[in-house]
Amino acid sequence: MKADIITIGDEILIGQITDTNSQYIAEKLNSAGFEIRQITSVADKKEQIINILNQISEHTDLIVITGGLGPTEDDITKQTLADYFKSRLVTNKEVLEDIKKFVKSKGFSLNERNIKQSEVPENCKIIRNKNGTAPGMWFEKNNTVFISLPAVPFEMKEMFSFAVMPLLKDHFKTPDIVHQNILTYGYPESTLAEKLSDWEQNLHPEINLAYLPSPERIRLRMSIVCNKKEKAEDILTGETEKIKKIIGDSIFGYGDIFLQDAISPILKEAKKTLSTAESCTGGNIARLITSVPGSSAYFKGSIIAYSDEIKTSILKVPEKIIKKHGAVSKETVEHMIKGQLELLKTDYGIAVSGIAGPGGGTSEKPVGTTWIAVGNKDRIIAQKYTFGNRRLLNVRFASARALDNLRRFILGYDIV
Amino acid sequence: MKADIITIGDEILIGQITDTNSQYIAEKLNSAGFEIRQITSVADKKEQIINILNQISEHTDLIVITGGLGPTEDDITKQTLADYFKSRLVTNKEVLEDIKKFVKSKGFSLNERNIKQSEVPENCKIIRNKNGTAPGMWFEKNNTVFISLPAVPFEMKEMFSFAVMPLLKDHFKTPDIVHQNILTYGYPESTLAEKLSDWEQNLHPEINLAYLPSPERIRLRMSIVCNKKEKAEDILTGETEKIKKIIGDSIFGYGDIFLQDAISPILKEAKKTLSTAESCTGGNIARLITSVPGSSAYFKGSIIAYSDEIKTSILKVPEKIIKKHGAVSKETVEHMIKGQLELLKTDYGIAVSGIAGPGGGTSEKPVGTTWIAVGNKDRIIAQKYTFGNRRLLNVRFASARALDNLRRFILGYDIV
Repeated sequence: MKADIITIGDEILIGQITDTNSQYIAEKLNSAGFEIRQITSVADKKEQIINILNQISEHTDLIVITGGLGPTEDDITKQTLADYFKSRLVTNKEVLEDIKKFVKSKGFSLNERNIKQSEVPENCKIIRNKNGTAPGMWFEKNNTVFISLPAVPFEMKEMFSFAVMPLLKDHFKTPDIVHQNILTYGYPESTLAEKLSDWEQNLHPEINLAYLPSPERIRLRMSIVCNKKEKAEDILTGETEKIKKIIGDSIFGYGDIFLQDAISPILKEAKKTLSTAESCTGGNIARLITSVPGSSAYFKGSIIAYSDEIKTSILKVPEKIIKKHGAVSKETVEHMIKGQLELLKTDYGIAVSGIAGPGGGTSEKPVGTTWIAVGNKDRIIAQKYTFGNRRLLNVRFASARALDNLRRFILGYDIV
Repeated sequence: MKADIITIGDEILIGQITDTNSQYIAEKLNSAGFEIRQITSVADKKEQIINILNQISEHTDLIVITGGLGPTEDDITKQTLADYFKSRLVTNKEVLEDIKKFVKSKGFSLNERNIKQSEVPENCKIIRNKNGTAPGMWFEKNNTVFISLPAVPFEMKEMFSFAVMPLLKDHFKTPDIVHQNILTYGYPESTLAEKLSDWEQNLHPEINLAYLPSPERIRLRMSIVCNKKEKAEDILTGETEKIKKIIGDSIFGYGDIFLQDAISPILKEAKKTLSTAESCTGGNIARLITSVPGSSAYFKGSIIAYSDEIKTSILKVPEKIIKKHGAVSKETVEHMIKGQLELLKTDYGIAVSGIAGPGGGTSEKPVGTTWIAVGNKDRIIAQKYTFGNRRLLNVRFASARALDNLRRFILGYDIV
C-alpha cells in the first residue's frame, strides 16, 4: 500500500516554520504498513494544490493532506478540494454543533468565520475535531483515498491517531503489523550491533529489525506483518526475552518514551526523591525531569552551580579541590553531589560538570570533557566522558548520559 | 525566480527524523528573492529521484537537493545525478585533498570509502565541504541549476550560506533584497498590529512587511527589492526609527536572535550578574540563558525549587506565606527572588512559580496561572499571567516572558 503526504502552507515554503506534521504522519503510516512514496509541501495556492494532486493521485493509494483549513482568507484548501472533487460546500449540522460546543468551552462567542467552518464539501465524510474548529475530510476517487486535516499539530495528531488510523485499517484491510520498540541507552550503535550479532543471525525469519539511533536513545524496532496478532506478539515477546538476556542493562523501556519518563515509575514506586546539581548542563537535566507530568512526586529541585562561587558557597565544594583538580574533575563532581544531597535532602542525586564549549577547552581537557556523578548518601559513582565540540549537542549528550547513569545506579547495573 | 527543494532520505519517509534542512534552505532562498515552488522528500531510490527531477525541472529555475551523499551503500544520490546528467564519476584531486585533511584533523585514518567520496560527476562544479567528507555539486541543464548538498545540518548550513548563496547571486543576478528583521516580545500580534496600524498605512511603498509570530518572539520583517542597496538601507533605517518610537520597549533585537541572546550584551556591558529561582519552569530559563556561549560571564546559577520544601529551606520563603497565599502567588515569588538574591549574590534575579499542568489547577488558579518576578535588591516587580493548558507550551511561554520582563526591568521599560 502506498501513501503520499502533502503539507500545505505558505509559512512552510518561505521557511518560517519546520513542517513537523509530516514526520508524525509518516511514522504512523509506516508503522501501519504503508510505504510513504513522497512528502510534498506546497503553498496556499489553488493551482499548486490541484497540480500536485493530479501528479500523484495515480501513483498512490492514500494521500494525507494537512493545512489550509483555518478561518482566514488565505486558507483555501477546503474550497480547492470541493472544486477538485466537483462538489459544493454545504453546512454540516454535526460539525456546526461541534464548533458551537468548542467555541463555548473556550469562553468565546460564535462568529461568522466559525460558522463558515461548518461548511464542507457535500461528497466528503467528516472527521471530527475535538480540539479546534476545522473538521477533517475523507474523499475517495478512482480507488485513492484523500484525507484533509488541519495543520495545528495537536489537533491533527489526535484526529490522526484516534479517528483516521482506525478508518484506514477498515478501508484498506491493512494487515496487522505488530511492532516491538525496544529502547536502549548506553552503548553506541556499533557496540550494540556487535553484542546482538549472534542473536540477529538467528532472528525469527518473520521479523524485520531496524536500528533507529538519536542522541537520546537507540530504538530497536522489530516488526511482523501478520494475520494472527496473538502469534506475532508471542514471537516478539520471545525475542524480547532473548535480547534482555544480552543487553538487559541497556533497555530502559518500550514504546516511545525517553529516559526521563523511564526513571519516573522507578522513583515513584520506590518512593524515593531526586535532585540535580548542574554546571555545564545549565538546568537541562532538571528541565527534562520536570517535563514529565507528575514529576513533582519525586523531583525536589536543583542547584545550578554555573559559577565556581556557587559550587563552593552553596554546594560546599572546598575551594582547594577546585583549585587543585579543576571545576571539571572527579573530585569536584563528587563534592557537588555530596553537598547537594545534604542540602536538598533527596535520596538520589545527579551532578554534572563539563566543558560545553566553544571556549574553555585545553589540550588536557578538551571541549566536551564532562564528569557525571550519580549516587546516594552511601555510594557515589563518577565517570568521565568526552563528547564532541558542539555546545548544544554536548548538553544533550551529558543530560541523557546522566539520566541513564542514575537509572543504572538505582537498578544496580554497571555504569558504562 | 523559482526554486524547488528536494530532500532525499529513507529516514524522512519512514518518519524517523524531521526534515529541518528544507526550512533553513527555504528561508535563505526566500530572503534572496526566490519563490519556493515546492519542497519534496523522496526515498534513497534512484527511480524516485530521477522521477521527481523530471517532473519539476521544467517548472523551476533552481533545484536544491540534500541527502544521499554519505559513504554507505544506501547513499545513491551522487551516482544517480551522474546518470541523470549523463556523466561519469572521476576522482577530484581538490576534493581528495580536502577529505585527507578533514580525516586527519579528526585523528582517523583514510579508508576506501572516504577515498570513494572524492569521486564526483565529471561535469559538475564542486562546492567544498570544510566540515565533512561529502562535497557539494553544482550542475546546469536547460537553464535550470541543480545543487546537491550533504544532509548533515551543520555541514549543509555552512556550505549553503558561505558558498552557495554567493554563487546563486552571481549566476542568477538576483536583485539585492535588503531585509530588516525587527524582533519584538511583549504584545500579542493583534495588539502590535493595532499599535502599528497608522505607521503601516504610511509605510514606504517599496517595503514589503510580514509579521512572523512564534511563542518566543514576533518578528517583523521589512524587505525591499532594490537596485541601490544603500538607498534601501536608508529607507529601512528610517522606518525602523519610526517603529522604535511606537513600540521601542518591545524591540529586543534585530536579525535572528532570541531573548536569551539579547540580555547577554546588556548584562556584559553593565558588568552585572544574574541568577534564577524556578519552580514550574524546572530549569528551562537557566537552560536558555546558558545556551548562549560566554554566558558564564554574567550567569552564576539557579535554585530550582520544584518542591515547597526547597522554597522554604533554601530560598527562605516563610512557610506561612505559602500556607496563606499558595506556592503560586505574588507573595511567594517575591520571597523567592529575595531569598535567591541573598543566597546567590547576583545583581539581578528572576523567580517563577506557576501551574504548568496537566494537574494542579483550581477554579481560582487554573492550569497556566503563573507568577513571574524580576528585580534586584532595591526593587522587585511581580506580575501574573494566565497561559494555556499545555504543560510544555506553558514552560516555553513562562520562560520567554520571564526573560523579557528582566530585559524590561534592566532597561527601565514598563513590564507588560
